[in-house]
Amino acid sequence: MASAFGSIEMFRLRHVPIETLSEHVVFVHESAVADGELGLSPLDRVHVRGTAPDGAVREITGTLNFCGDALLEIDEIGLSRVAFRSLGLEAGSGVSVTHASAPRSVDRVRRKLAGERLSRQDFDAILQDVVRHRYSKVELSMFVLACALRALDMNELVSFTRAMIDSGERLDFGAGPIADKHCVGGVPGNRTTMLIVPILAACGARMPKTSSRAITSPAGTADTMATLANVALSRTELHRVVVEAGACIAWGGALDLAPADDILITVERPMELDTEAQMVASILAKKKTAGATHVLVDIPVGDTAKVRSHEQADALTQQFLEVAHAIDLELDVVVTEARGPVGFGIGPRLEALDVLAVLRGETAAPADLREKSLFLAGRLLERVGAARPNQGHALARTTLDRGQALEAFERIVNAQGRRELPPEAPHRFTVTARAEGRIREIDCWGIARVAKHAGAPANAAAGVRLLRTVGDVVAAGEPLFEIHSRSEAQLGFARAYSEDHTELIRLGF
Amino acid sequence: MASAFGSIEMFRLRHVPIETLSEHVVFVHESAVADGELGLSPLDRVHVRGTAPDGAVREITGTLNFCGDALLEIDEIGLSRVAFRSLGLEAGSGVSVTHASAPRSVDRVRRKLAGERLSRQDFDAILQDVVRHRYSKVELSMFVLACALRALDMNELVSFTRAMIDSGERLDFGAGPIADKHCVGGVPGNRTTMLIVPILAACGARMPKTSSRAITSPAGTADTMATLANVALSRTELHRVVVEAGACIAWGGALDLAPADDILITVERPMELDTEAQMVASILAKKKTAGATHVLVDIPVGDTAKVRSHEQADALTQQFLEVAHAIDLELDVVVTEARGPVGFGIGPRLEALDVLAVLRGETAAPADLREKSLFLAGRLLERVGAARPNQGHALARTTLDRGQALEAFERIVNAQGRRELPPEAPHRFTVTARAEGRIREIDCWGIARVAKHAGAPANAAAGVRLLRTVGDVVAAGEPLFEIHSRSEAQLGFARAYSEDHTELIRLGF
Repeated sequence: MASAFGSIEMFRLRHVPIETLSEHVVFVHESAVADGELGLSPLDRVHVRGTAPDGAVREITGTLNFCGDALLEIDEIGLSRVAFRSLGLEAGSGVSVTHASAPRSVDRVRRKLAGERLSRQDFDAILQDVVRHRYSKVELSMFVLACALRALDMNELVSFTRAMIDSGERLDFGAGPIADKHCVGGVPGNRTTMLIVPILAACGARMPKTSSRAITSPAGTADTMATLANVALSRTELHRVVVEAGACIAWGGALDLAPADDILITVERPMELDTEAQMVASILAKKKTAGATHVLVDIPVGDTAKVRSHEQADALTQQFLEVAHAIDLELDVVVTEARGPVGFGIGPRLEALDVLAVLRGETAAPADLREKSLFLAGRLLERVGAARPNQGHALARTTLDRGQALEAFERIVNAQGRRELPPEAPHRFTVTARAEGRIREIDCWGIARVAKHAGAPANAAAGVRLLRTVGDVVAAGEPLFEIHSRSEAQLGFARAYSEDHTELIRLGF
Repeated sequence: MASAFGSIEMFRLRHVPIETLSEHVVFVHESAVADGELGLSPLDRVHVRGTAPDGAVREITGTLNFCGDALLEIDEIGLSRVAFRSLGLEAGSGVSVTHASAPRSVDRVRRKLAGERLSRQDFDAILQDVVRHRYSKVELSMFVLACALRALDMNELVSFTRAMIDSGERLDFGAGPIADKHCVGGVPGNRTTMLIVPILAACGARMPKTSSRAITSPAGTADTMATLANVALSRTELHRVVVEAGACIAWGGALDLAPADDILITVERPMELDTEAQMVASILAKKKTAGATHVLVDIPVGDTAKVRSHEQADALTQQFLEVAHAIDLELDVVVTEARGPVGFGIGPRLEALDVLAVLRGETAAPADLREKSLFLAGRLLERVGAARPNQGHALARTTLDRGQALEAFERIVNAQGRRELPPEAPHRFTVTARAEGRIREIDCWGIARVAKHAGAPANAAAGVRLLRTVGDVVAAGEPLFEIHSRSEAQLGFARAYSEDHTELIRLGF
């Protein structure tokens, strides 16, 4: 039974070390609620309220879970990690628990579902509740599906983007130009960022790059960079690195940039829907809040990439340009071909090796990664005024070939904090060709699954190393790719997946 | 670090006593995954697999949560209650954890979102995955919203209903007629079931009634009946009660009738959308699987009820009749008026008192509850052939007035197991009229919120007792209703809510 302090039932606050990411979970002992005194049921939305030592009332909203003896004492309320941090009270503080209503902004989501248009105020109200963790998973899903099914028009898309920008903090690097780039994704191994940034830095352009960790892919830029340097920079450290090295390649997740996006993504990804408007808003809001003035966006098009046709790429380009104009970003969009991964490696360590090989000018370095990076770096150099028109590509190539990009990369690594590349994974298996032929295409999505099954990105050494690539001719039985894994079991899963999916590497004549 | 049994990482299975209702949650110690060996990330969908003593491989799919020392040892995998029960292995058994893909039937949900029509096979595939807890909350939301936004046509609605029926078990009471009834809801205090069942039983009609507990309302029929008798009957007990008493008023939740519905409802309710097709499928699937042959459906219409207009009621009636015909149920639909709650009490104990007063023929018994129950019982008596045409109402009245319904109710209570009615709640507050006037309407939804804030239904004695009802003339300052609560704090919340919402009782002239 809850003890009574005065007239309000009070519980002792306890930290329950469960990582629920975006969701606030509130635990109560089932015996404390069994007699019905509190009128609470499992999955109710509740307020947890307490008073800080300075007298301020602190409150969070969360989802109630009932639990038994193993977790809590009967007079305790447990909060999952994010919820405990949000409430900001000491363990042992007295807290009360009361029913909470759905946030009022959910009515705006229902209006959108019914086919109405939303205003800037609507998006602000919704995203403010989202960043305060007031939306349940079901309500987040409603919002994302409402925007996907009742397509956003351009006014809505601009409003949504602006509301995303205002949902958190912003970085400020003073007067521009500040260069940035983004790839729409879906192409494994596509680590051009780790080459473009040092090339631009070597040419005197400032490029404070913040990237994400992988969410559904086998590696994000931040995962790959993390095998060589510390990427978890605070705001202060990030500014210091940019002063010292002119650029950085950091993880953006701890900087509170467009945090509404980070929460929406937890339901968008599992849906795997075509939510292009939301992608445009998400990408441009992140760039704007990261302090960029000039942004290059790469849209790879391919049968197994995220964007599947040139028509789709053109429509997306148009949306990017219109929204960028409205929020005062200089934007350059490049549509590239994707008939398979870029480079040989898929997975953090194997991708880092590709990047180092290109920087060092090794003969075995992947030519596709080198060429694509030079092309993109050249365009960005021209845009920020670091190269004259039509001179960008040549400048990029010289900078790379003379070792200046490698030096710039070393400065960035040293400023962020050098890390030792993890050793090669102990368990490996080589997948061979079942027939002869020319490699016409490599399934981007499928080969990424193999790398994920092998343990990437959580295990940095795990992944796939391509031994042959698109355009190569192979004989039956010839090696196609290696799977790298830290355990036999995971190697087995990844191998089984690749044996079940014979069209991963499509051969033709 | 996970210990290695042969080549597969094995963990010891542990039961984590957290009630997550429809969702399977899998807990892993963050240190077991920190080195990335397992390649697992928070919120991943995973398989947990182990071998039973008889050699059978047992497996469940769930959502991965990372946790710290307080919950698990480093070589343990924890399963939440439902997940542990589903897996069906002993604590301490060896289990492995591997990545799981989204269930294949999610592709069918995406096709529906894209505007395609679904077949019987589609609905079967989806609901089979749903009842196996393979859908995440986000995927459940996608399915419910797909059906709501891309409206189901009649073929789909019938397929959906049939798939719901086949998603679980069925009760069988042999040759009919077997009577049943259902109210579409939204009207507090509407406990006609507890009067109709004993009237029918007293007239020799069989009526094995299974009801739900409240989900968002202050009391379901099962909550109210539970204040007088045991309602948690097993299948065997339920059959015994029906043999002994000709009828029952039981909780249907433990009988595995249309279990897909119970899971879908966990996301439907928080959405508060107009998902009428899903309501029709849900209600009729429950009735069919409960063994009914003749069903009476009550659709209350009112400004604050669930159904707001007669047009909406007519469309809903048509859907009910068509689906019922397709699944071979005799259906009678009655549209009733709802200008406020039925009876005086709202909340389990207070509603039970209304029912007992009507059964006992007390002069203070609520006339509206009595009249509505007699009307519905009369129609149902005629439908099942227990009364001649146009004689049902008279038979129902005589049965009630002669005390035969009370006797039948006592037989049902004794067969189910008598319970002591809980004592009156210790804390009460009387809300008075702010002005004079005639009560034109009582806000069904709003007054239900007051009862919920007071603690109903978790606290059976909590709720609202109306002192005046629709049609009464009151003077300013005259008592309108009492709030009953087991604690001062809850009384305060309920009182504050009713003071903030002055239109709960609408006065006119």
